[in-house]
Order: sequence, then C-alpha cells, then structure tokens
Amino acid sequence: MQPRPLPSHDALRHAADTALAAGRSKLGEGGVATYIPELAKADPRHLGLAIATVDGQQIAVGDADVPFTLQSASKPFALARVLDIVGDALFEKVGVEPSGDAFNSIVKLEQEQGRPRNPLINAGALVVCGYLPGPTAGDRIAGLQRFFADVSGGAEYPVHEPTWRSEEATGYRNRALANFMRQYGVLGETELALDTYFRQSAMQATARTLARLALFLAHRGVDPGSGTVALTPQHNRTVLALMATCGLYDEAGRFATRVGLPAKSAVSGAIVAVVPGTLAIAAYSPALNARGNSVAGAAALAHLTEALGLSVFG
Amino acid sequence: MQPRPLPSHDALRHAADTALAAGRSKLGEGGVATYIPELAKADPRHLGLAIATVDGQQIAVGDADVPFTLQSASKPFALARVLDIVGDALFEKVGVEPSGDAFNSIVKLEQEQGRPRNPLINAGALVVCGYLPGPTAGDRIAGLQRFFADVSGGAEYPVHEPTWRSEEATGYRNRALANFMRQYGVLGETELALDTYFRQSAMQATARTLARLALFLAHRGVDPGSGTVALTPQHNRTVLALMATCGLYDEAGRFATRVGLPAKSAVSGAIVAVVPGTLAIAAYSPALNARGNSVAGAAALAHLTEALGLSVFG
Amino acid sequence: MQPRPLPSHDALRHAADTALAAGRSKLGEGGVATYIPELAKADPRHLGLAIATVDGQQIAVGDADVPFTLQSASKPFALARVLDIVGDALFEKVGVEPSGDAFNSIVKLEQEQGRPRNPLINAGALVVCGYLPGPTAGDRIAGLQRFFADVSGGAEYPVHEPTWRSEEATGYRNRALANFMRQYGVLGETELALDTYFRQSAMQATARTLARLALFLAHRGVDPGSGTVALTPQHNRTVLALMATCGLYDEAGRFATRVGLPAKSAVSGAIVAVVPGTLAIAAYSPALNARGNSVAGAAALAHLTEALGLSVFG
Amino acid sequence: MQPRPLPSHDALRHAADTALAAGRSKLGEGGVATYIPELAKADPRHLGLAIATVDGQQIAVGDADVPFTLQSASKPFALARVLDIVGDALFEKVGVEPSGDAFNSIVKLEQEQGRPRNPLINAGALVVCGYLPGPTAGDRIAGLQRFFADVSGGAEYPVHEPTWRSEEATGYRNRALANFMRQYGVLGETELALDTYFRQSAMQATARTLARLALFLAHRGVDPGSGTVALTPQHNRTVLALMATCGLYDEAGRFATRVGLPAKSAVSGAIVAVVPGTLAIAAYSPALNARGNSVAGAAALAHLTEALGLSVFG
Repeated sequence: MQPRPLPSHDALRHAADTALAAGRSKLGEGGVATYIPELAKADPRHLGLAIATVDGQQIAVGDADVPFTLQSASKPFALARVLDIVGDALFEKVGVEPSGDAFNSIVKLEQEQGRPRNPLINAGALVVCGYLPGPTAGDRIAGLQRFFADVSGGAEYPVHEPTWRSEEATGYRNRALANFMRQYGVLGETELALDTYFRQSAMQATARTLARLALFLAHRGVDPGSGTVALTPQHNRTVLALMATCGLYDEAGRFATRVGLPAKSAVSGAIVAVVPGTLAIAAYSPALNARGNSVAGAAALAHLTEALGLSVFG
Repeated sequence: MQPRPLPSHDALRHAADTALAAGRSKLGEGGVATYIPELAKADPRHLGLAIATVDGQQIAVGDADVPFTLQSASKPFALARVLDIVGDALFEKVGVEPSGDAFNSIVKLEQEQGRPRNPLINAGALVVCGYLPGPTAGDRIAGLQRFFADVSGGAEYPVHEPTWRSEEATGYRNRALANFMRQYGVLGETELALDTYFRQSAMQATARTLARLALFLAHRGVDPGSGTVALTPQHNRTVLALMATCGLYDEAGRFATRVGLPAKSAVSGAIVAVVPGTLAIAAYSPALNARGNSVAGAAALAHLTEALGLSVFG
Repeated sequence: MQPRPLPSHDALRHAADTALAAGRSKLGEGGVATYIPELAKADPRHLGLAIATVDGQQIAVGDADVPFTLQSASKPFALARVLDIVGDALFEKVGVEPSGDAFNSIVKLEQEQGRPRNPLINAGALVVCGYLPGPTAGDRIAGLQRFFADVSGGAEYPVHEPTWRSEEATGYRNRALANFMRQYGVLGETELALDTYFRQSAMQATARTLARLALFLAHRGVDPGSGTVALTPQHNRTVLALMATCGLYDEAGRFATRVGLPAKSAVSGAIVAVVPGTLAIAAYSPALNARGNSVAGAAALAHLTEALGLSVFG
Repeated sequence: MQPRPLPSHDALRHAADTALAAGRSKLGEGGVATYIPELAKADPRHLGLAIATVDGQQIAVGDADVPFTLQSASKPFALARVLDIVGDALFEKVGVEPSGDAFNSIVKLEQEQGRPRNPLINAGALVVCGYLPGPTAGDRIAGLQRFFADVSGGAEYPVHEPTWRSEEATGYRNRALANFMRQYGVLGETELALDTYFRQSAMQATARTLARLALFLAHRGVDPGSGTVALTPQHNRTVLALMATCGLYDEAGRFATRVGLPAKSAVSGAIVAVVPGTLAIAAYSPALNARGNSVAGAAALAHLTEALGLSVFG
C-alpha cells in the first residue's frame, strides 16, 4: 500500500506545542526513579518533545536538548542491531510474547527454562547484549555508538560513567537474571553481557537525538537521511511489533489503547514512539507513574497522536 | 492524517487467490479441536478467506461460505457492544493488559483479586457477557444478533444448538472462572454470564459474514454500508488495541511480527483481522496449531498482509 | 518401641489450667472470621481446652462445652474415613505434599492438572468428600456422624443449618475449585462433593467432644474406649503425617517449631492436635490471626506442649 | 514426659541388617546425580546404613564407611550452629514454612521479596551461610569443621576440593539466588555466602560419621558423648521441625507418611534422620529418584522405622 501523506510542518509544530502544554499540565505527578543516585538527580519539571519525519523535518519543543540516559529505550536499537547480524536465530534464545509480569521478573524465566519472554524485558535485553559483536563490553558499546551515529546523522551517545558505575554496583537483580539464564545455557558469558548491558543503559541521548535515532524504524529499516540500511523491512516490522506488544512494561495494553503506537519507555523518563511510514517521536520527562512510565511524557504523546490521528488503530 | 489509499479490486482478488494457495499448502498440519464433538466434526481440509473493504468491495475465496461457530472470535464484537453501553467503567472490572498466560488460565485471576487481565481471555469475556443488556441469556443473545445484523448488512448469526449445549455441559473450567470472579465481586451472576457466554460462543458465521461484520472496526466504529454507529472512534481504537496485544492467545507477539494486524482467533479455526481505515479480513480453517490458532488461516493471512503491505508496522 | 508413659491426671490438670491462663492472656488479639454471619457471631472471649488420653482420662477447662462448627477441623476425620474405605488409591487423585500456598489457592491446581496438593486444603478435602459413601450428601453426612459417634463414645455432631446454608450460598471459591478439578477429571460430581463439603464443615462439636473424637488418631487408629478400629495403623500414620506437614494452613512450619504436634486448625477457631500413643487435645477460641489460626488456642497449645514436653521433636 | 525406652542392641542390629537387605533390593533403580563430574563418579551399588543411639551404641552395616559429600545434608547442622549464635533473629531473613516448590526455585523468592521460605532450601541455606562466623569462607568452614568434630567424637569432615571447585564453577543458579536476595537486602555479601556454601556442600562424611554427627539433634541439642551443648532444646526442636516439614525437597509429605521422622536428604545420596530422644540414622546410596532422594536409602529407612516402630506418628 501507499504510505499515508505526512502532516504539514505547521500542523506538526502546532500539535507539538499543544502536546507540550498537555504534558506540562501533568508535571508534579509521579516521581523520579531513585534506585541509583544519578537518576534521582533528574529535574522532575523537565519535559521535552521531539519529532523527526521521514521527509526530513525535525521539530523539538520544551526541554528537548536535556541529556538523559537511554536505559530501556536503548533496547529496541540494540535489538535492531542484533537482529540484522544474527537474524531469526536470536529467537531460539528469546521469545516474542508479552510476559504479563514486571519487566524484571524472574518467575516466567524459571517456568520457561531460562528463555526470556521477549527481548525488551531485562532478561531478554541481556541475551541481546550477549550477541552484540566485539570481544569486550567496551568494543561492543563503541560499535553500538557507531551504529547509532550512522543512522542518526552523526549524533553522539556517550556513556554516562557515574550512571554506568552505579548501575553496575547495584545491579544484583540483573546479575541474578544473567546467572539464571547461564544455568540453562541461554546466556554464555554472564559478565560480558552484564557489563555491556550496564554501559548500554547509561548511553546518553536527548529527546531530539532519540527521535532522530528512531527514524529508521519508521522507514522500513532505512535511515532516510543517509540511506544507511539498518535492517531488513521484515526485521524492522519485528522490532516494531515487539515494541507494540511489549514496549511499555506492564502498561503495554493501556498505552496501546491510549496512544496506539509501537513505543519503548525507560526508567529515566524517556519514551520513544514510531509511526510506521511517517515519523518518530521522543518524549522526555523524568517523573514516573507507579508502572515506571513517564507521566508527562505519556500525556504529551497521547495528545500528539490524538491531535494528528497517528494511532495505528485508526 | 489521511487514510491510506485502498488496493484495487484486482490487486485484492489476486492477493486473496495467492493467499488461499499459500494457506492450502499448510492443510494437513495441525488438528481440529476435539474437546466437544461438534468441533471435532469440522473438515480439516476447509479453508476460506474473505475480505470486506470500507469502500464496499467484498472478496471471498475458497470455503468462504462454510458455517462455523464464532467461539472466541465473538469476543471483540461483544466487547464493542458493551463498551458502547457501559463505557470505560468496564475497565474497573477487567484490565487491558496481555496476560502472558494461556487464554483460560486462572493463575493471574488469583494473584489479581479476581480481575481478569483483559476482555479477550475467557474470564474477561465472561465479565463482558455480564454487562450485555437483557434479563435473560436468550434476550442478550437476541440483542447481540440484532447488533451484528445491523452493522453487517443484515447477515444472520444463529446459535448452533448442539455446540451450545455441548459447551454448556462440559464447560467446567469456565464455570470455575466465573465462580472465582464471583467470589471477588467481579462478576455478579455466574449462571447468567455463563449461559450467555456458551450461547455467544456457539453463534455461527462464515468467513464472508465475519469479514463483513468486522468492517465497522476498520472504519472507526461506523458500518460504512448502513452508516450505523457501533461505538465511538476512541472505543473502537480500544477494541483494536486489545486485539493487537491480546487477540491471539499466547501467540499475540508472534502474530504481530508475522501479520502485524489487530486480530482475534477462535478454537473453531476462525481468525478475524482488521486493517484500520481500510478493510477487514476473515480466514477459516479448522486445523489448529499447538497454541490453538488456525494453521492454514494464519498462513493465508500472513501471505495476504505481506503481499498487500497491510501490516500496521510498515 | 514402647509407648511413652502418660502424664498423671494431676499433671495434666495443672498443665491445662496454666495453658488456659496462657491462652487467656491472648484474648483480645486477632478477630473472628466474618465471611459468613454465623461465624461472625462467635464470642471472641471464649477459650476452651480439652484433653483425652488413651487410658481414658478426660480433662476439660474453660469454655470446653461451647459448640462451634468443625469447618476444616473435620478434614482429618473425613480423610481417615475415606482412607479406610478407598485406601491408597485416594492418592491418585490428591497428593501428600505441603502446597506452600494459601489453603484455598487455585494456582497449583492449574500447574498440576487439577490434582490438589494434599487432602487438607480445600480442593483436596472436596476430593475426599467425593469418596464418602452414600448416594446423597445427606446420606454421606449421616454416615460420617455415625462414624464420629462410634469412635467417640456416642457424642453427636449435628449440622448447624444456618452455617451450612450460609456457606453454601457464598461458597463461590470452593465451587470454582470443584469445577476446576472436574475439568481435569479429578472430581466426578461437583454438586455432590460441594453439598457434602458445606454440610461437613457445618458439623458442630465442642472442645470436649473434639478431643475425644481425635483419640483414635493418638491410638494407632483404634478408639481406646470402644475398641472400634477406624483405620489401619499405617493409614493412621498417614493422616498424622499430613496433619503435621499440611494441617495449619501456611503456618504449618511455625506451628511445628512452636507446638510440634500433628494438628488441624479451623476458621471457627478450633485446633485439634494429637500426641501419638498418648493423648489428643482440642482448643477452641474464635479470634484468628492473619493466617486464619486461633490466637488464644495456639497459645494455649504451645504452653501445654511445652509444660508437658509433648512435642514429637523432643 | 519420659523418653521412650531404647531398643536393645540386638534389635537394632537385626533391624539394620534387614533394612540393608530391603534397601539393596532397590539397587538398580534411579540414577546418580550427574550435574557435576564428581557426583557422577559415585558407585550406584553402594548402600550404607548407620545408627547412633543416645546411650552410646553404634551400628553400621553395608557401605557405612564410604565417604560422600554432605551436600544438602550439611544444611541442618549449619542451621543448628547459626541458630545457636544468632537466635530467632535469623527468622527475620528466612521463613519456617514449606515452599511447595523445588529446592532451588526462585519463584517464591520473587513473590516474597527475597526472603526464602525456609533454611533448608538453597536460598535459605545461603542466608544461613551468611551468618556463620568468620571473615572468610575458609574461616567459616574451619569453624564448622571444629563444631562438627566437637559434637561427634572428633570425626573429620574434610572439604573435597574437586567437588567444591566443580560446584563453584557451575553454580549459576545459586549465584542467581544469592544476587536476587542481595537485591532485597536479605543477603549482605553474595560472594562470601556462595563461597562458604560451595565448600560446605563439599564437606565429606560417611554414613557412620553422619549418624554420629546427628546424635545431638536426637538428644535435645546436647552431644551425649562429650556433653557439648550445641544449641538450646527449643532451637533443637526448631531444627527438627524444619527437617520434618521441609527436609525432603518436594517429597517431604510422602517421606512423612512413609518414614515419619525429621530428616534431610542430599543430592549425593545421603539421608540423615532423627528419632527424638532416642537415636540418629544415616543412610547413603547415591542413586536418586526423580525428586532427588536416594532410592535405596529411603527404602532402608522406611524398613528400619517400620521394624522398630520409630515413626513419630505412632
């Protein structure tokens, strides 16, 4: 089928402005993550929103240039990279179904012989980290940074060292998940996967760079700026399908009814969403609801998709 | 945004023919459901495929006029009806998240105080049945039949009595679910809900009538033939979002990566899928895979969506 | 081995008096069950304690003649009856292991194909009810009453009709358990088992009659008064082993460390305990702790076993 | 109460001989553990049985001097040591209830905020290891060896280094459990606890030394040989109660009905059992049933307790 026509720049700009206002009305609700000191330092009044379209438009409003760590918002991109390298063989080690449990739950991992439900929960993302190319975690992250830069016009995604070190020092639960999967032979080297995971989570972006980074996901796997092919259209659909069903922790269904876009949220307050064939959106606001999703970010996204009729569900 | 242009009639017809061939190549795999005699009688060689478009086209190939009982494929339509009557208050009694468990599991129901995860698993569908209007199960089903007829050009959906009676006589698990929810006050009258549920599951359609019935879901809640408003655009999106995340039992994720459409499958071998803004599809072939989904039906759908680029994920 | 010498009457009497005082110091803690009106009417200040010894002594202190419904304290006796009739074939339908979950949980029932973990949780007790002899629930209960009378010197255990009717009218969870097991063929007739179960739970005793009823369990299956053989020594040990590991809901371990006797508690506030080879004890006090066990009753039992060195663990 | 009279030496000897024969009739059933090479080397034809009585008798028949690693049979003794040092404060970090799940399950650990169900499953034993005194794992094990020697007439319990190293190299699941508990603050230092645990599991004994080691548990916490007080009578009862309810993995109930003694089994094929006030028994035969318990060892124990009437349940 033909792609749907893009909204005009003015329409996008207007929608972004009113979405920002809608999101701002939620500032004050929820709270920033506090399990590591670096996240607790975030300013809960920040709200940034950015849009990148497949025809090259970029819109950024509010605190769209405030850096944050990608945390779980890095997962779809690492998944895209690994899917392009490993192919569907990845799914021998990790499933493609919603877990129905919390993002860091270990229960289903026991019931299902160490095979994580999907690549967007922590256990599954550790498996993905285990497949990134490179002999060391440093090499793997450097490779990921190059890939991110290649598909996003050269933007940089530096590892925020205090966050990385803090996650590494306190990541007992992820360490438990990794050892549990190692027991079943699902993960080969726990330390390498964990080291990569902690660094990847601490990679920094802004709403502006994150929207731009996600643009290839809206363009069947090809960065429309450089023409760089990130992955095949089929694998790209797989990433989007997983975002749609598993991207919002245990609010995937609610987000689907409210926003209706493939998306991935992060404990830092980022949410990245994709309108297939059209555009990518990133929202950032660090105060989270009880499910771990950005309150103001989700509100801004809901407003934006409603205003522009972006939901994939009509 | 503008809706996407519709494929031409020739393109649809050609795609349907090749999808039928692709599905037929899978006949012989899987097996028909046998838990009640009526389902066991289905002919595993049957494969029907039908398409209805928002601009009034209808395509039907293969065994598109063979009647089958709707079973779980009735759930999205009962949900649509109840959402229009009750509104979001429904979601006080039933959630909107994937369960991560089997469609008839009772585990999460215990963990979550009797509130079903979503309206498309059996427990949630029983809650929906509890909200259908009418003093008796007979009245409720008659009302549902009128609603179905109103939005599908007058087609009929008779209750297949032997199937209904058979399900009623053996439905211990659904009876367990209903009593469990009653314990928590989530369900008010177990017998009325169960009686309605067993009859609703036994309503008959064909691939042709089912595709036509689903057309309002592809048209923001309005039947494009009669102009009948079934439910608001927002509630319509909710139904589609739930189909996309919870519609294929514990293959929701795999179906999303493979087909990429909101859909609902049934133990009778039906699958109904929706391309928002564009068209509705029904496939019927009674031999199921281990997850309870039609083997040939899913293969035909995968072929059709690939050929026409229908996936909502691009 | 030789049985241990019995404590003297004076020692028993003195220990019972001080145990009563110890239990009374806990009156005011906990609360009576309120899920049906009849249980809520119990006087939380009541505390009765009774001992029956294999050499014919009977001690009763406090409110030992206040009637209460047996509830779950009936389970070991129905089990004894059925074990004598059916033998170890019973354990094809019900296990002998602690469940690790609440007494009325349905989770393991799903994981284990409808086979209850043990005969002292509700699901398992329903299976036992399904094996009691007699064509109707009334016949089954009349048979149980005769058995109880035979082994306890003719005492009567009438069904308290308001309690029975109330449990029957509100027992949705037990109805769910029964239907769930029916689904797996573990239970044959749900209504007969449920009807029997609700009546059995409503059979009345006093601390005095309950201690006397349990005496055969302390005497290798033989009522020392009448010489009536209730069941074989081996089956009697099975009942006691199940009481020891599964008798106190999810406080079995704590009760084992604190009291150290095979016992069964009930939501009415009864606890029946057995010192193999020696004596049986019943305590009654209706205020329960959060785990559903009698606060004052458990305290009195702990004092009594400590004072007389009755723990099977030395 | 008075303790029960001891069986005569001749009666014990005769019962041990016939129990050995009964156990030997089961040789050939089951299989040795193979998850590490050292366990796989065990000779499945070995069967040893030893009894130590509180009045100083010792009986040893069959392969009672073949060394094996204690594995989980070390858990009650480490628990006894820690209970004597830490007291009931231990139970703030670990429960006293049967888990209802496998000995190495992580499911309940997630549901219950990292607090293991009891000290005899792996997670709970790791918590116990965390409380053993000493700055290093080597110190802790040396202290445990001294304690074991003190209460068992000077016997030695050397760490079998190949087993230790092999468990350490492959113990991913225990590493997962430790990190999971660390996440919740239940365990302080994961590496120290794990290091101690792997060494403790590899401590060697024979049926003869293990029966002698367990004698204090049969004697209210006091070694009858040396008069050494290992722990208080109340804590001793706690250890026995936990063995009775949680000592045989998920066969605790079956073992209670069949043998009726507090006991602990091990993957090496050891089972240690205690007759309170009377004697201790150790059986060793490395071929295990599907639940991880020694086939011939359990058969010998069942015969012995039946012949001598040792069951605590009469």
